[in-house]
Amino acid sequence: MKIHTEYLRFTTTKRTDFILITHEVNQVIAQSGISDGLVLINPMHITAAIYVNDAEDGLIEDFQTWLEHLAPAKLGYKHHLTGEDNADAHLKRQLMGHQVTMPITNGQLDLGPWEQIFYAEFDGQRPKRVLIKIIGE
Amino acid sequence: MKIHTEYLRFTTTKRTDFILITHEVNQVIAQSGISDGLVLINPMHITAAIYVNDAEDGLIEDFQTWLEHLAPAKLGYKHHLTGEDNADAHLKRQLMGHQVTMPITNGQLDLGPWEQIFYAEFDGQRPKRVLIKIIGE
Amino acid sequence: MKIHTEYLRFTTTKRTDFILITHEVNQVIAQSGISDGLVLINPMHITAAIYVNDAEDGLIEDFQTWLEHLAPAKLGYKHHLTGEDNADAHLKRQLMGHQVTMPITNGQLDLGPWEQIFYAEFDGQRPKRVLIKIIGE
Repeated sequence: MKIHTEYLRFTTTKRTDFILITHEVNQVIAQSGISDGLVLINPMHITAAIYVNDAEDGLIEDFQTWLEHLAPAKLGYKHHLTGEDNADAHLKRQLMGHQVTMPITNGQLDLGPWEQIFYAEFDGQRPKRVLIKIIGE
Repeated sequence: MKIHTEYLRFTTTKRTDFILITHEVNQVIAQSGISDGLVLINPMHITAAIYVNDAEDGLIEDFQTWLEHLAPAKLGYKHHLTGEDNADAHLKRQLMGHQVTMPITNGQLDLGPWEQIFYAEFDGQRPKRVLIKIIGE
Repeated sequence: MKIHTEYLRFTTTKRTDFILITHEVNQVIAQSGISDGLVLINPMHITAAIYVNDAEDGLIEDFQTWLEHLAPAKLGYKHHLTGEDNADAHLKRQLMGHQVTMPITNGQLDLGPWEQIFYAEFDGQRPKRVLIKIIGE
């Protein structure tokens, strides 16, 4: 049994940004020498999410419009009484599912034809980390 | 340490369909010979979800009504400029949580009294796969 | 490879309650003797969720207001034809993401600065269990 841990770092230029990371995850898997197992990809900050969906720009716009509709940036959140202004980012990351655990087979992500892994940032413009933990053999 | 991988296949007759798969997952666990560990159940297509909830027909109708309210099938999604018509299915699968990782104890799923595993299809009538990866001993 | 399983028990006094469990999870990790690996934290009841976000009281109020808006407690759910009255609790737990798998490094949860683990109860006042399964070395 092998375990391998890596941390990706992101500082987005925009408050909201969706970044494709499938290739980076496969690179970490290659470095780990693990050919069969599971990879947890977990954002270490609570206003970002890791999710799996289509790498299609129109759909990414649709996600952003939809998240803004269901969890709008606005005044009036109780969280803002602390001086924060990002309550909507905390809600949006829950809607997208927070984190993923993906399968590794034959030394790489075992993906369907359109599965792609994204880092979704909802309160960027500051340094953030994503933890990758691989377990297998 | 043992690792076992299996692929389930689904071609639903309806565009939206919720299929109970707890029994199939337990069968794969039995075949694996793994008595203690984790099982990842991940849809390999990005318009379907695996989720855990109650096997009660009324609640399944409620889920479908609710998902249609929060992520309606409609015109106007940017994703449809590609010729696709299923943007709502991509959104619905995120709302349901995409995937699950479940515990195995004593050679079977370690479930609470009403936990049941479902495959939720939001853009069916075509062949889809679900990956099951078991890790344990 | 080591695997360790534990069950936490909760009986909340209120129907809806959010309980911080980061410390309890770290205690189970310490008991397991596992220093590197993954921990699955899964509610065994289908009207509760485990989620990771900020331990800030205002934000927890915001979550509850927001969930009530998107998945309201109301009459008219089909699930209620069975005599149940908690369909909204089943929906809310899906919105929050159901379960989490978290990384363990150096014998404890490998968390970012504000990541905290919560048990979110949406239909309490009865005994519930949460399964913790740790796999690693």
